Amino acid sequence: MPRRLKKRSRKAGLPPGSLIHIGDRLTEKTKITAFDYDESHLQEKEIKTVGECQQFKDSRDVSWIHVEGIHETQILEELGALFGLHPLTLEDILNTEQRPKVEDYGVDLFIVVKLLSYNEKTDEIEAEQISLILRRNALLSFQEKEGDDFLSVKGRIQNGKGRLRRLGADYLAYALIDAIVDSYFSVLEDLGERIVNLEEDLARTPDRTTLFEINGIKKEIIYLRKAVWPLREAVSFLERGDSSLLTPATRVYFRDVYDHTVQVIDTVETYRDLLSGMLDLYLSSISNRTNEIMKFLTVIGTIFIPLTFLAGVYGMNFHYFPELDKAWAYPAFWAVCVVLSVTMLLFFRRRGWL
Amino acid sequence: MPRRLKKRSRKAGLPPGSLIHIGDRLTEKTKITAFDYDESHLQEKEIKTVGECQQFKDSRDVSWIHVEGIHETQILEELGALFGLHPLTLEDILNTEQRPKVEDYGVDLFIVVKLLSYNEKTDEIEAEQISLILRRNALLSFQEKEGDDFLSVKGRIQNGKGRLRRLGADYLAYALIDAIVDSYFSVLEDLGERIVNLEEDLARTPDRTTLFEINGIKKEIIYLRKAVWPLREAVSFLERGDSSLLTPATRVYFRDVYDHTVQVIDTVETYRDLLSGMLDLYLSSISNRTNEIMKFLTVIGTIFIPLTFLAGVYGMNFHYFPELDKAWAYPAFWAVCVVLSVTMLLFFRRRGWL
Amino acid sequence: MPRRLKKRSRKAGLPPGSLIHIGDRLTEKTKITAFDYDESHLQEKEIKTVGECQQFKDSRDVSWIHVEGIHETQILEELGALFGLHPLTLEDILNTEQRPKVEDYGVDLFIVVKLLSYNEKTDEIEAEQISLILRRNALLSFQEKEGDDFLSVKGRIQNGKGRLRRLGADYLAYALIDAIVDSYFSVLEDLGERIVNLEEDLARTPDRTTLFEINGIKKEIIYLRKAVWPLREAVSFLERGDSSLLTPATRVYFRDVYDHTVQVIDTVETYRDLLSGMLDLYLSSISNRTNEIMKFLTVIGTIFIPLTFLAGVYGMNFHYFPELDKAWAYPAFWAVCVVLSVTMLLFFRRRGWL
Amino acid sequence: MPRRLKKRSRKAGLPPGSLIHIGDRLTEKTKITAFDYDESHLQEKEIKTVGECQQFKDSRDVSWIHVEGIHETQILEELGALFGLHPLTLEDILNTEQRPKVEDYGVDLFIVVKLLSYNEKTDEIEAEQISLILRRNALLSFQEKEGDDFLSVKGRIQNGKGRLRRLGADYLAYALIDAIVDSYFSVLEDLGERIVNLEEDLARTPDRTTLFEINGIKKEIIYLRKAVWPLREAVSFLERGDSSLLTPATRVYFRDVYDHTVQVIDTVETYRDLLSGMLDLYLSSISNRTNEIMKFLTVIGTIFIPLTFLAGVYGMNFHYFPELDKAWAYPAFWAVCVVLSVTMLLFFRRRGWL
Amino acid sequence: MPRRLKKRSRKAGLPPGSLIHIGDRLTEKTKITAFDYDESHLQEKEIKTVGECQQFKDSRDVSWIHVEGIHETQILEELGALFGLHPLTLEDILNTEQRPKVEDYGVDLFIVVKLLSYNEKTDEIEAEQISLILRRNALLSFQEKEGDDFLSVKGRIQNGKGRLRRLGADYLAYALIDAIVDSYFSVLEDLGERIVNLEEDLARTPDRTTLFEINGIKKEIIYLRKAVWPLREAVSFLERGDSSLLTPATRVYFRDVYDHTVQVIDTVETYRDLLSGMLDLYLSSISNRTNEIMKFLTVIGTIFIPLTFLAGVYGMNFHYFPELDKAWAYPAFWAVCVVLSVTMLLFFRRRGWL
Repeated sequence: MPRRLKKRSRKAGLPPGSLIHIGDRLTEKTKITAFDYDESHLQEKEIKTVGECQQFKDSRDVSWIHVEGIHETQILEELGALFGLHPLTLEDILNTEQRPKVEDYGVDLFIVVKLLSYNEKTDEIEAEQISLILRRNALLSFQEKEGDDFLSVKGRIQNGKGRLRRLGADYLAYALIDAIVDSYFSVLEDLGERIVNLEEDLARTPDRTTLFEINGIKKEIIYLRKAVWPLREAVSFLERGDSSLLTPATRVYFRDVYDHTVQVIDTVETYRDLLSGMLDLYLSSISNRTNEIMKFLTVIGTIFIPLTFLAGVYGMNFHYFPELDKAWAYPAFWAVCVVLSVTMLLFFRRRGWL
Repeated sequence: MPRRLKKRSRKAGLPPGSLIHIGDRLTEKTKITAFDYDESHLQEKEIKTVGECQQFKDSRDVSWIHVEGIHETQILEELGALFGLHPLTLEDILNTEQRPKVEDYGVDLFIVVKLLSYNEKTDEIEAEQISLILRRNALLSFQEKEGDDFLSVKGRIQNGKGRLRRLGADYLAYALIDAIVDSYFSVLEDLGERIVNLEEDLARTPDRTTLFEINGIKKEIIYLRKAVWPLREAVSFLERGDSSLLTPATRVYFRDVYDHTVQVIDTVETYRDLLSGMLDLYLSSISNRTNEIMKFLTVIGTIFIPLTFLAGVYGMNFHYFPELDKAWAYPAFWAVCVVLSVTMLLFFRRRGWL
Repeated sequence: MPRRLKKRSRKAGLPPGSLIHIGDRLTEKTKITAFDYDESHLQEKEIKTVGECQQFKDSRDVSWIHVEGIHETQILEELGALFGLHPLTLEDILNTEQRPKVEDYGVDLFIVVKLLSYNEKTDEIEAEQISLILRRNALLSFQEKEGDDFLSVKGRIQNGKGRLRRLGADYLAYALIDAIVDSYFSVLEDLGERIVNLEEDLARTPDRTTLFEINGIKKEIIYLRKAVWPLREAVSFLERGDSSLLTPATRVYFRDVYDHTVQVIDTVETYRDLLSGMLDLYLSSISNRTNEIMKFLTVIGTIFIPLTFLAGVYGMNFHYFPELDKAWAYPAFWAVCVVLSVTMLLFFRRRGWL
Repeated sequence: MPRRLKKRSRKAGLPPGSLIHIGDRLTEKTKITAFDYDESHLQEKEIKTVGECQQFKDSRDVSWIHVEGIHETQILEELGALFGLHPLTLEDILNTEQRPKVEDYGVDLFIVVKLLSYNEKTDEIEAEQISLILRRNALLSFQEKEGDDFLSVKGRIQNGKGRLRRLGADYLAYALIDAIVDSYFSVLEDLGERIVNLEEDLARTPDRTTLFEINGIKKEIIYLRKAVWPLREAVSFLERGDSSLLTPATRVYFRDVYDHTVQVIDTVETYRDLLSGMLDLYLSSISNRTNEIMKFLTVIGTIFIPLTFLAGVYGMNFHYFPELDKAWAYPAFWAVCVVLSVTMLLFFRRRGWL
Repeated sequence: MPRRLKKRSRKAGLPPGSLIHIGDRLTEKTKITAFDYDESHLQEKEIKTVGECQQFKDSRDVSWIHVEGIHETQILEELGALFGLHPLTLEDILNTEQRPKVEDYGVDLFIVVKLLSYNEKTDEIEAEQISLILRRNALLSFQEKEGDDFLSVKGRIQNGKGRLRRLGADYLAYALIDAIVDSYFSVLEDLGERIVNLEEDLARTPDRTTLFEINGIKKEIIYLRKAVWPLREAVSFLERGDSSLLTPATRVYFRDVYDHTVQVIDTVETYRDLLSGMLDLYLSSISNRTNEIMKFLTVIGTIFIPLTFLAGVYGMNFHYFPELDKAWAYPAFWAVCVVLSVTMLLFFRRRGWL
């Protein structure tokens, strides 16, 4: 998908760690929300200046700092300085061309995943990059634009019951990733619907747009695969990797996410196989139709061409032309025509052309 | 196969472990049967309330609790509480979209497999999810609907002779999985029959329905592969994994199941190859037929088109037209026609078009 | 290949280890031959009752008990009891649907391989299942029907010279497997000949039967691959596995068999590639021919259609028709015809259609 | 790509380590530049004779000797002698057919990568081989021709601030490789543009040149893959290999390069998939068009062929021809023609051919 | 490639180690040359009887015994006895169907490689099997026919300078294998030339022979792959395997050969991809041409068919035929013809058919 590739050249020649936002500016203003909770208490706060984050950094409870909008590189730089993030981490957060991945920096885990959504207008899958930095007691998350994608997670925190408040920052990371992988199922459902419609088109009246539709879905699937396969690898690391930031209790949940990821991959691959079957159906239905048309032309043509010749013969002006004088000649001509036509039709029927 | 995908979105946004049944409600009433046996005694009982299971849980003999119907989440919740099951396990039992898998929770093994059957009416393969929880002395099994799929296993328990009564809960798990894998062979036989019929169709008179039939079987095979490949992995774990719940004596039997699974995969892949060969046959048979039709049209056309021209010539009304007056002209015309036609036919024969 | 699949359903629902013969009854009577030898002596005996085998079981020399015909399950049961074979081993010997494999039971190795032969009448590859049980000083071998496939091995035993008499039961197992793998080369030669003939057909006059022949060989190759790939794995185990029943001296020979197996696989894969190239050739030769035919029709058609129109014009009966009265009109008509035709022909030649 | 293959045979039969330049002579004169720097000082010098390099070899700061132009084998030989390079290393530097690779000689790492650029004139990707020799305190780099490809790296050295001056020779090697991998993104952007243009062509009016364009891009992608896949392996070694020349701090940066390489591969593979989809689109658009043309011919043909026959009939000269005398005959003829044509047209419409 | 397969069946049924030559007899007389050298001295001798080799066997210098012609099994048997070779080694030397491989017998390494050459007459790649037996101080090499393939190696020995005389038998083995791998590049160049010619043919006037040429090269590439892929494995063992016969100094050189082998594989795979692109080009150029021809026929046909009908109408002999009497009728007829034709042509132009 060449959709976003171009913007990257902005960066060529710069030293690594240069903070340049690569991607579309998807929101006006950066919005930072901080949560600080343990089983018994909860503090939720909208952050105005990066400095306010200091208190959460030092808190012994679980702190979640959620950043919506990443184009203001200044804010990210300050956050990076406050939390001591590696320059490459900051660069990766800003470059929305990342593949899903997990990087283990010892004191923190840097996780990149893609939140997918299906744009009904363009019929294209859109990806938003979510970057997570997981520490012992804190989670930093970065999202390209403001959205309600994590409303349910926030609700569960505010609600106060359930595992989320009892368990650590790693479980929170799990909850976010789980919500992201759930977004894939909804994208798959939209694609699945298009495929079902396509199947019906193919069974009825495939035309040129059918082919472009097949190719269109194929392109979305190519895009989807690029997001999903590396995600599997990343989640597998979270389940099995040896980072001490992930407790065994949470790893069980990551195994569940892993299962979901594999299910997504399964479905994507199934769609791919279905589409390739559809392409075959389409191509052969064109051949079939050409065949039908040819058959029709051949039947009409081979019946009338000899008859026309015959009519031409008796339209000749030779002076010596015995048949012309016979009274029975004209009816005989018609008789010959009928016999010839019927013979031909029988022949075509036997050949299976009718 | 987008058949079942849609229902999953019901769950988006819920915390993990939320007990929601994903799948069709396939039976009216949940039915629980309990077996408790060792070599010398056997107790079989239909369970009315989950509480009655308590005695089997504590029994030192092998206990088998078989649940048919999983839509009553209340009952599952109670069972989960009684046996101390992990919330994700319960969730997986209810979500019939699982891939076959084995999960090792230490004190128990959670096994998911698919029981397949061939629906003669829709010509589709149907899958029922079977979940097993294997403990030291107990096996819990969950099935989507009431069925006689395990009658032979029950019979062997009731019968009292044979290894089943002598060996532990792991052997019972084996017996169930063996019965399930046997169901795959019967599905393969049904598919095999359709393929043989298709081959005959192809050799005789392939038409558009043949193509849709090829594509239909292909889709069933895509579906089948999704069930079989992960099953192999799961059974391989049961044969080689390091869970202490599986005795070496039983592992030998799992090796046998593993062999059967590989045989199933072999056959599925063979079918796939055969179908792709059939598609080639089909496509080229269309090309062949178009070719035949064209040949016929060309033969008829190229013989009569020049003759018709000739007849047209002698039908012209030029006043000065020497040939028209000759007595031999008309017979000569026919002679020319015959000579031309025969020449053409010989030419076609030499070209191999006749 | 759905050839044999069906018979398996006979067994569904039976406990594992049930002795039921799956396969065709290929011989009338089970024939058991026993050899007992070391470097200095040789005893060869036709066994009538299983009890007679007792002496060979306890012998310290190398004993080879060769069973031809496996449908009499009673005899196998007795042999199993006498030699203490695992019930699954007996079941596998009887089920001729096995994939080639080696199973290590500690005191014995259970080896399944397929003896292939090419049936000239049906043009199909036929497989006979050979099961070997290798012990410290003994080898049991089971073959579906009486045959002279191991004559050369028997000859080398009787002959008394050479390594076979000096080395142990594992070398005997090697000798048998080597003879079996040799059978694959002869099958490959037969297939190779068919492929060479096919190539000549393709270069000359491919027709519909050519396509079916391509597909037929393809099916045989699918079948062959199913036998050969797992064989490689099995032989690799014999070469590298850690069973103490195989001496280092013999393993060198198994390495040689392994090389042959890989050579067989190489050839099979080469055939596959060649066949897929042939399919391309075939398909494009049809396209080519349709193209040729169309060209011919187009040349004839486009030359005569305008001329026929012209003749039609001068056959019209308009009263005011100046050309008709001119004496030069008729010759001029012919001149126009000739000029038009020649122009057309030159045009076609320039286009490369002639 | 057979582009450069031929020149290699110049070397056949020579002993290994023979210094022969394989490739095009891309520059007139070899140019050697030396940098010697640590955090506080910087020396930059254009080298005239290899002997001048001695001082840099022994320097304890980071030394970078950059050689532009490699066809003067004499100079390379002297450099090799001075720095004690392995003869095979020198040979590899001169043979510009190398695949990207890393070779660990203990005291130095020999790294080969390809700098890519897109030649707008020939629409071909051009590769320049860059060889690096990394030592404890020194980096030797060899480039085929003079170029400004590393201007930004030089700038950062001269600039004096930033990590480059603080860190060692391994970081310098990283900086160069990073600049090289950046060149891949720009090549990908050029290819991406061609693909987008192609997509528009396909949606509008594909013709024969479209096909050649598809094939042309495909060839570039084949070329690109040959450069990129082994690069991934090489960079992976730099990130994870056990050479002591690479500090952990720098390895983090190589992980970043690795990520970029994988991104490049992802894009290349995506392009490949897109192109194969385009080929399908192209092929089926030809079929579609043939179909359209045939439909048109069939419609015109089958309407007029019967009518022409009819006109021929009434052009016959039979003496006994009752219809000819009727006054209504001529209008009736036209009526029949109109009715027949309309019937045909309705029939075609119902068939979906109009 | 079924080229040589047949001869193998000669051996079926023989015990392993039976010395039978499988392959064509490529030379008249076996020729044995012996070299014995260290840095300071060199002895070169043509051997008449195998017994003369005794002195070289016991020599402490490097001895190289080079055998050209392997059909005289008697000589090989004597050599085998003298040097104590394993019977399977001798068998493998004689069976020229071997795949490239390395076998480690502890005291010696047995290496099989293929020397390739391009037969300009048959346009086929020919392979000659070279077998090497490497010992501590000796190298035995076997070649199918007399040839000058190793002239450069011999020259370097005779020349006396360079590494070859200083280093051991393993370096000599390297030198031979390096010369062999060089032969692959020359074969690749010949193939590359054919591919370039093919590409030009495709751009100009592809016909049926083009397709057979594509298929012919494809077959050569299948053959080449069979030789090259296992060679990579073999050379990789020489570079990385744990045989003590290979010194670290020589392993560096084998790494170089390994690189060349990978380069060969790269090129072979590239050729494969190019050829598959060419096949697509060819097939679609046929479709294109059929399309063109159809277009032409359709244009001519659909213009003249209606006009011919019209001419037919005015050739009818109805007595009541008002138009015939009008003086303007004939010019009007022509006017209608012209208008119709021009309309049609404009229509075709708008459709893009002209």
